[in-house]
Amino acid sequence: MIKRNNSFNIAIVGLGQIGNYLYNELNIKKKQIEKKTGKKIKIVAISAKNKNKKRKFKINKNIFFSNPLDIYKKKIDILFETIGLSGGISKKIVEKALKKKIHVITPNKALIAKHGDNLSKLAEKNKVNLEFEASVAGGIPILRTIKEGLATNQIKKIYGILNGTTNYILSEMENSNENFDKVLQKAQKLGYAEPSNPKLDLNGFDAFAKVRILSALAFNNKISKSNCIMEGIENIELKDIRIADQLNLRVKLLGISEIINNQLFETVHPCLVNKNTYIGNVNGVMNAVILQGKPIGESIFQGEGAGPGPTSSSLLSDLMSILRGNINYSFGIPFGKRKSIKSFNNNYYTNSLYLRFEVKDKPGVLSSITNRLAKFNISVKRIIQTPDKKNKRATIVIITHKTSEINSKKCLSIFKKNRNIIKFPTLIRLYN
Amino acid sequence: MIKRNNSFNIAIVGLGQIGNYLYNELNIKKKQIEKKTGKKIKIVAISAKNKNKKRKFKINKNIFFSNPLDIYKKKIDILFETIGLSGGISKKIVEKALKKKIHVITPNKALIAKHGDNLSKLAEKNKVNLEFEASVAGGIPILRTIKEGLATNQIKKIYGILNGTTNYILSEMENSNENFDKVLQKAQKLGYAEPSNPKLDLNGFDAFAKVRILSALAFNNKISKSNCIMEGIENIELKDIRIADQLNLRVKLLGISEIINNQLFETVHPCLVNKNTYIGNVNGVMNAVILQGKPIGESIFQGEGAGPGPTSSSLLSDLMSILRGNINYSFGIPFGKRKSIKSFNNNYYTNSLYLRFEVKDKPGVLSSITNRLAKFNISVKRIIQTPDKKNKRATIVIITHKTSEINSKKCLSIFKKNRNIIKFPTLIRLYN
Repeated sequence: MIKRNNSFNIAIVGLGQIGNYLYNELNIKKKQIEKKTGKKIKIVAISAKNKNKKRKFKINKNIFFSNPLDIYKKKIDILFETIGLSGGISKKIVEKALKKKIHVITPNKALIAKHGDNLSKLAEKNKVNLEFEASVAGGIPILRTIKEGLATNQIKKIYGILNGTTNYILSEMENSNENFDKVLQKAQKLGYAEPSNPKLDLNGFDAFAKVRILSALAFNNKISKSNCIMEGIENIELKDIRIADQLNLRVKLLGISEIINNQLFETVHPCLVNKNTYIGNVNGVMNAVILQGKPIGESIFQGEGAGPGPTSSSLLSDLMSILRGNINYSFGIPFGKRKSIKSFNNNYYTNSLYLRFEVKDKPGVLSSITNRLAKFNISVKRIIQTPDKKNKRATIVIITHKTSEINSKKCLSIFKKNRNIIKFPTLIRLYN
Repeated sequence: MIKRNNSFNIAIVGLGQIGNYLYNELNIKKKQIEKKTGKKIKIVAISAKNKNKKRKFKINKNIFFSNPLDIYKKKIDILFETIGLSGGISKKIVEKALKKKIHVITPNKALIAKHGDNLSKLAEKNKVNLEFEASVAGGIPILRTIKEGLATNQIKKIYGILNGTTNYILSEMENSNENFDKVLQKAQKLGYAEPSNPKLDLNGFDAFAKVRILSALAFNNKISKSNCIMEGIENIELKDIRIADQLNLRVKLLGISEIINNQLFETVHPCLVNKNTYIGNVNGVMNAVILQGKPIGESIFQGEGAGPGPTSSSLLSDLMSILRGNINYSFGIPFGKRKSIKSFNNNYYTNSLYLRFEVKDKPGVLSSITNRLAKFNISVKRIIQTPDKKNKRATIVIITHKTSEINSKKCLSIFKKNRNIIKFPTLIRLYN
């Protein structure tokens, strides 16, 4: 092992909600951390866009650098990257740190999902740690659990609710009976959704980055780049939530990663789950990860997924790990031993489907739909037709038996041209 | 860091269900472990009472020692202690290993709960690891999560279902409508309960050992020795489970550890929990641990609690940790920094109570009970009286508002002498 100093200099780049909270926690918990690890720590450099922005916790302006790359004028041992870009300055500053043999800790899932392979290789080459526990499910130390606690298990599947914003919105729509836009505004006001651009949470991108990181750890593969089914919750209407409710179902945005026939299948999409299941009762901003492995069976991990508190908890656990001298491979095993894995063909992903059609209330419309389904061998489990006489419309909800993606896509495409169908059907997959 | 050999010799003492499974897993996963850690491992010594007993997995008799202390004739780096006694040869062999600078891994909660402080001190002195992840909630790496993943959180409370045997029995009584004795037999047949002496599971002793270990890790205190409320499930009758069911409640054996007024409160007893809660839906052999901390909020960990598979998963995670060179303090911080903590006085523990009286069906019996409760300021939330006319008896169930242990004990004592009360009341606390 490498001989180390007993004292570690720390830099934080990015002083938004997370970075600023972390800065404060580091100051408050300095003594506790030093007691538990026997090492000294000192924040020697901080950087952000705006030195004089009003922040919740006061910063020491004497160690502030306007240009983040200037922090390297100081001797630094550990860098916290809390800017959060998937590339750009986030990537630049992390690469530079690793090359200078500086440990890096980041909650930046976008960066790791995109460049994690190369960055981990760089860390390995320079014999420093690249840690990103906070990038997935803040309050749950799930990455360390996979890398260490469950290290010898053969994991077959890992899935869960990986985005607190969307889970809050779906829960709140159900509880308050308010529509998507109204609840989104509420989420923004409460700080659960980005005020300026909540898109990356809503469209599944954020959850997908986490799925890719979880896959890489669980299955020891390189981060996959393949195109997968990624759907967000933007098209879920209050109406769907109400109908699901009647069917004892609940809409959840699930991230799923699974090995099927030795191929990797990753997806993020809304699912209808039974209200009596565990996952159906993870509500609000909570995150949950469910892991199926051998010999442990099924394990469940639930906790707050977002917010500076839980994120900071994970950032500091990474710090403790480094201070204790635990030199780990970022993805659990040496870079050279991580496999490239073939992707499962999405076309053959099969599910029961919930299809909601808004149609003109005319004779023959329902049969034109069911005939089309029959033609594609999609058998119907249940039909609920609700007329809206005033507007001469009807809502038709069909729950199908299992069918493949390719089959349902082909089958449904025709309805775009059907004049009696007012809206292309809303499709939500049922969780198997 | 200490310079180490690249090759580790392993001994296993105790080849029962756990030890034998572990022996097989080590052989199967040798290559995987070596790949992930870059270290070589070799089982060089095994020991058990009976060399020729029929075992599920065949052992190499060439490395078998009848006297466990003879294993030290070989050069050993890591010892697995899987005998399971709270003292005796288990203690002796672990002490000897630590003194010889041999790392020790054990799932033995009884040993750790009783002698963990001294053993961890010994490990620290000799600069080796004493690891016991498998001692609590086998399939859930909860100890490592507290020590590492949540290291900088301030934990306030930790509780859960820590014994799979009792949870299986309670679930199965509810599902099958069979009485305690019958379900216990079923549990023994399925291998969930000890065939010869299931007492330590049933009376709460096993769960209590786990509570003591969790407390020590969560609150950084030395293992407490104080007398606490420890009740098992032996007195829970099918009748109670049925009545609870009607009240939308479920009986669970909970282990609870909490800091109240800077004092440590630890307990194990059956609780009535709401069926709509998370903990109310952890059924069968599952274990669950719920942790409340700052800043993470509430985190939940669920997994299979017992059986050789999950236990072995944790034993191997400890092995990986040692092979990677992670030298940790057994309880997260140096022995000298762990506090002795005062115990909370059980008398002031308060709960709502479920009281079931079996009485003679005579006028005045109910009022004699309610008068007595009133005298002790125990106010009644709900009364359910069910007559059994044939036998001239009645069942009276009373749900009270909150009252302290000392108060309820004083209040109820008189009923022992009441001739109209056929059975001293069954008391189950409601979970707050």
